Amino acid sequence: MDRSATSAEVERVVAAAERLGLKAHPIPGAQRTAVGITGNKGAVGPGAFEALPGVLEVLSVSHPYKLVSREFHPEDTIVSVGGVLVGGTRVVVIAGPCAVESLEQTLTIAREVKARGADVLRGGAYKPRTSPYAFQGLGEEGLKILAAAREATGLPVVTEVLDTAHVEIVAHYADCLQIGARNMQNFELLKKAGKTGKPILLKRGMSATLEEFLLAAEYVLAENNPGVILCERGIRTFTDFTRNTLDLSVVPAVERISHLPIVVDPSHGTGRREKVLPMSRASVAAGADGISVEVHNRPAEALSDGPQALTPDMFGELMDQVRAIAAAVGRTT
Amino acid sequence: MDRSATSAEVERVVAAAERLGLKAHPIPGAQRTAVGITGNKGAVGPGAFEALPGVLEVLSVSHPYKLVSREFHPEDTIVSVGGVLVGGTRVVVIAGPCAVESLEQTLTIAREVKARGADVLRGGAYKPRTSPYAFQGLGEEGLKILAAAREATGLPVVTEVLDTAHVEIVAHYADCLQIGARNMQNFELLKKAGKTGKPILLKRGMSATLEEFLLAAEYVLAENNPGVILCERGIRTFTDFTRNTLDLSVVPAVERISHLPIVVDPSHGTGRREKVLPMSRASVAAGADGISVEVHNRPAEALSDGPQALTPDMFGELMDQVRAIAAAVGRTT
Amino acid sequence: MDRSATSAEVERVVAAAERLGLKAHPIPGAQRTAVGITGNKGAVGPGAFEALPGVLEVLSVSHPYKLVSREFHPEDTIVSVGGVLVGGTRVVVIAGPCAVESLEQTLTIAREVKARGADVLRGGAYKPRTSPYAFQGLGEEGLKILAAAREATGLPVVTEVLDTAHVEIVAHYADCLQIGARNMQNFELLKKAGKTGKPILLKRGMSATLEEFLLAAEYVLAENNPGVILCERGIRTFTDFTRNTLDLSVVPAVERISHLPIVVDPSHGTGRREKVLPMSRASVAAGADGISVEVHNRPAEALSDGPQALTPDMFGELMDQVRAIAAAVGRTT
Amino acid sequence: MDRSATSAEVERVVAAAERLGLKAHPIPGAQRTAVGITGNKGAVGPGAFEALPGVLEVLSVSHPYKLVSREFHPEDTIVSVGGVLVGGTRVVVIAGPCAVESLEQTLTIAREVKARGADVLRGGAYKPRTSPYAFQGLGEEGLKILAAAREATGLPVVTEVLDTAHVEIVAHYADCLQIGARNMQNFELLKKAGKTGKPILLKRGMSATLEEFLLAAEYVLAENNPGVILCERGIRTFTDFTRNTLDLSVVPAVERISHLPIVVDPSHGTGRREKVLPMSRASVAAGADGISVEVHNRPAEALSDGPQALTPDMFGELMDQVRAIAAAVGRTT
Repeated sequence: MDRSATSAEVERVVAAAERLGLKAHPIPGAQRTAVGITGNKGAVGPGAFEALPGVLEVLSVSHPYKLVSREFHPEDTIVSVGGVLVGGTRVVVIAGPCAVESLEQTLTIAREVKARGADVLRGGAYKPRTSPYAFQGLGEEGLKILAAAREATGLPVVTEVLDTAHVEIVAHYADCLQIGARNMQNFELLKKAGKTGKPILLKRGMSATLEEFLLAAEYVLAENNPGVILCERGIRTFTDFTRNTLDLSVVPAVERISHLPIVVDPSHGTGRREKVLPMSRASVAAGADGISVEVHNRPAEALSDGPQALTPDMFGELMDQVRAIAAAVGRTT
Repeated sequence: MDRSATSAEVERVVAAAERLGLKAHPIPGAQRTAVGITGNKGAVGPGAFEALPGVLEVLSVSHPYKLVSREFHPEDTIVSVGGVLVGGTRVVVIAGPCAVESLEQTLTIAREVKARGADVLRGGAYKPRTSPYAFQGLGEEGLKILAAAREATGLPVVTEVLDTAHVEIVAHYADCLQIGARNMQNFELLKKAGKTGKPILLKRGMSATLEEFLLAAEYVLAENNPGVILCERGIRTFTDFTRNTLDLSVVPAVERISHLPIVVDPSHGTGRREKVLPMSRASVAAGADGISVEVHNRPAEALSDGPQALTPDMFGELMDQVRAIAAAVGRTT
Repeated sequence: MDRSATSAEVERVVAAAERLGLKAHPIPGAQRTAVGITGNKGAVGPGAFEALPGVLEVLSVSHPYKLVSREFHPEDTIVSVGGVLVGGTRVVVIAGPCAVESLEQTLTIAREVKARGADVLRGGAYKPRTSPYAFQGLGEEGLKILAAAREATGLPVVTEVLDTAHVEIVAHYADCLQIGARNMQNFELLKKAGKTGKPILLKRGMSATLEEFLLAAEYVLAENNPGVILCERGIRTFTDFTRNTLDLSVVPAVERISHLPIVVDPSHGTGRREKVLPMSRASVAAGADGISVEVHNRPAEALSDGPQALTPDMFGELMDQVRAIAAAVGRTT
Repeated sequence: MDRSATSAEVERVVAAAERLGLKAHPIPGAQRTAVGITGNKGAVGPGAFEALPGVLEVLSVSHPYKLVSREFHPEDTIVSVGGVLVGGTRVVVIAGPCAVESLEQTLTIAREVKARGADVLRGGAYKPRTSPYAFQGLGEEGLKILAAAREATGLPVVTEVLDTAHVEIVAHYADCLQIGARNMQNFELLKKAGKTGKPILLKRGMSATLEEFLLAAEYVLAENNPGVILCERGIRTFTDFTRNTLDLSVVPAVERISHLPIVVDPSHGTGRREKVLPMSRASVAAGADGISVEVHNRPAEALSDGPQALTPDMFGELMDQVRAIAAAVGRTT
């Protein structure tokens, strides 16, 4: 309450809480009275009190998420992506091209990354592009190519879904649905993707707080789908030497308050090939359950995001380094 | 090019440009050689060059947008929302509740804002909510209520569309479709909303650069729909005394490089009622073509965003102040 | 407290508070127990509790500033800069070159801005420059030129002080000492400048929260110097079309919680001449007590920050526009 | 140039460049003419051209720093701090209390960290505090305590200098002068500290770009002092689960463009004890030349920053983990 709040104003807050089925505990202090409110199961927002006279500020001491919280589910969740377990002792490596460009390109890259130790194949069939004039992906044709690459290599496939209208078809072909950073708060998409029961790789939005990130995952879990893999891919800051700022502190932060696994995408997070290796090492050292990296057989000719793609040989070097770091933190690859 | 780039590396860049149908102009300097590339119509990204040996940095001197640009369309675009012209000399005021809660609530508020000079009614039927446990809107029922309020007051209606699956039904009832900040880069939604031919109120994403904002509008214009109204609603920064940071400098910036009208939403931009009045004045003084504000007859009981809603009387005061500022900058309300 | 905190852990928090002379109020809730702490006069930080077992989070409900707060000093403070009152009904205009370059340049500009209605002359003698190779200012020579310009025009002078070693000499010549954004948390400088008794124009740091900004002012007031003028000059965000993001919402925010006057610097805030006029209008409309703008007789030849300086004629146009807005909000110029 | 720029305007830009002793290279393109400018040694800023008619934008292709750049000095710089080499194959660990509180506290902690493998002792005698009412440090008394701890343990000492007036005395006692984040652009302090010839641990400002960070180091090198150790300690972003966002990508970015060593401070960078271990591992994995961590024998009673300090036992665990990661990247501790 404001320093100048009257006792009538304090009582009005107490009455408002009680009308909403909550309990109010006034705490008179030297300078002001605070009122603790308990019994809120998440349905009552701060708006119910902020507008009352004499109220200075409303501070939340509980968080609005529940199913994603370690408080409610203390054990780590392990998500199976076509048999590959994410969230256990093994550090999982997801690799592949940014965009599926052709059968030949995708098969070549899938074989190259499989040979060097990748666990899951990634590749975009539907591409979210900032400009309407940029390559928008091959669509269902791309999904078929990914399925063929899985057939040929045994690698399970993760690919992005952009729109509720494509959820069914993507779920038909893919082992795991990726929800991209730009769609992290596309709530209809979260609900519909959640309903498929397929595992969801949920990328953090470029300006998402941790609470917003976890609440987006909560949308999926609320559809009775426990299979969410969180993915840090860089946040937007003033910094200009990388495309985004990879916020690795989110890895221990998630581990502390949620039971969901978290992987890191250092390719989009940095936007620069030469930073992908050191930031992959750093991600695993910070405790990430996996990484997702872009690999292209001919980066200079890639139809999207060439500057951040690794060649197969660079990817091989990355695998060696990641293996060494994983061992140093007591994990395998 | 890098200072240590060889002439063979420079030649390879020139050759790469020519293979792509572009023209390259090497500029030898005291410390390094720069290579100017011309003839790019937007299809070739920086990736085509960044991966080549000896290349230090690729800088864009042209922008990838076209239809939204004042260079290509020098005259101001004026968008008609059910007969109300946005982008002309008149400063347009859009007002109404955050969420449509009931027929009675919506009719009451619509009449109150109409009586005080509002031009357009706003109100959410489909609500994007950070938490899956918060009120998600009345859906089609809410659209019917908005149509009834238009019938009763003559105010055209703007309301948000969240998903491609709802575009048709929202376009059936509303005079203008709002695309929210969280969906600014939901490209499928932009395309489908653009195809309806209805005017689009496009809110800037919380971490969108000006180029990304204009490219989102370009998606709509590329569907042969020229009716985009841009809307600044606050960006995400470290600042914590407002919910978002209203970036009013975007108003003169848009005016300089685009022909599209721009309005400001100081309710979401600040998240605090007591800042809505001063920031509404500031928006109009900066040159905005209109403002969009939340008004609720009983803010303390609003189902969403109560703390930022004005009472009808505060809205009346806002109209008086906005009128005075509009006159001072040579505009009407 | 954590959901799983034991009652022994709660008691340990209570005991810790009491040892520190504070009072603790446990509030048992459905999910967790919260403990309200009262009686803290600012000396005890959150660290005293955060490290205790069972403690989940420590939230402050009181702020650590006092002298700058409107709660402790309800009336507006009016600061006199050489007889010009800042913080009253008059909107004060501070104008002049970024850097003092020569007597002739400074006199010319001082006369031009005086003729068009400026109240205070600004100009840098000691210049903080990002690069060691950029022009660093004329030093004491520049101070003498400013004093001569005051002599010639009657305009009081505000100029920046960069280092504790220069405080005395700057205070000898200037009517008001400016502390720049880069020095907002140079606490030794704040203390020493405060001790001079001269008014201080304190610019907000590029990444300063409102609390940090007010605490920097508190350092000056704690030296028994009540004469602080706050100055918003743009914060650092991801936005790239202006040099900084002018955060005008800070104007009503300061007005609400502090009695100190606040002015806006739209030249540094935007870094672009064409945005200075609209953002000056917006600043005054938002309730600012004044503006500070850069004017140069030959902007293309200015030794620093040319792109943001206005010509004298543009400044004349700005004065006309600012006068109209000031009148619209019931103030004079 | 603008699309509509006339050839007279292009010529005027060429003439302006030549007047400044530079060379201009017009490059006519399909949509606009670009003008490449060469021969600039850093003295001419963009302002010389941005104000000319027809100029749309001025883009820098060279950077204003020189001495810090790897282009000018390809070999890694190794800085000796009292005999401990920073920037070689060894990962250096700097540890100690946030603030020097007493001889006994400092000796205890120095011995504890020495016993577990620390290389350098840290501790603040002059403390920059956001609030004027917080503990401001012991001053010279604190410097003497640090010297005594060095005597007792053999650990070289790094401590912060806040003001030009204290440079001499701090340089008298310390092996390395720390310039804090808030003073990164206190240019007078950088110059004076540089002149002492002592190594400088330069912390990145909370909103400093990489270019600003390197230019701050350039101020020191321009005083003929090559001994700068850069230090990442977190940047200010919207993220709220850590006090600052540790920007580890800066480590490979610095390594690529500068020859200076870089260390990471994960204590201030995260502000939370439980994140210090994982982020220390991540820092070393990313390629950092060292880390700086806060250790306190009784964190709950620390006079400043208790929540981020490790106990000696936690520090021992950190050393074990850092050793394992250092070995995995081919370095020693």
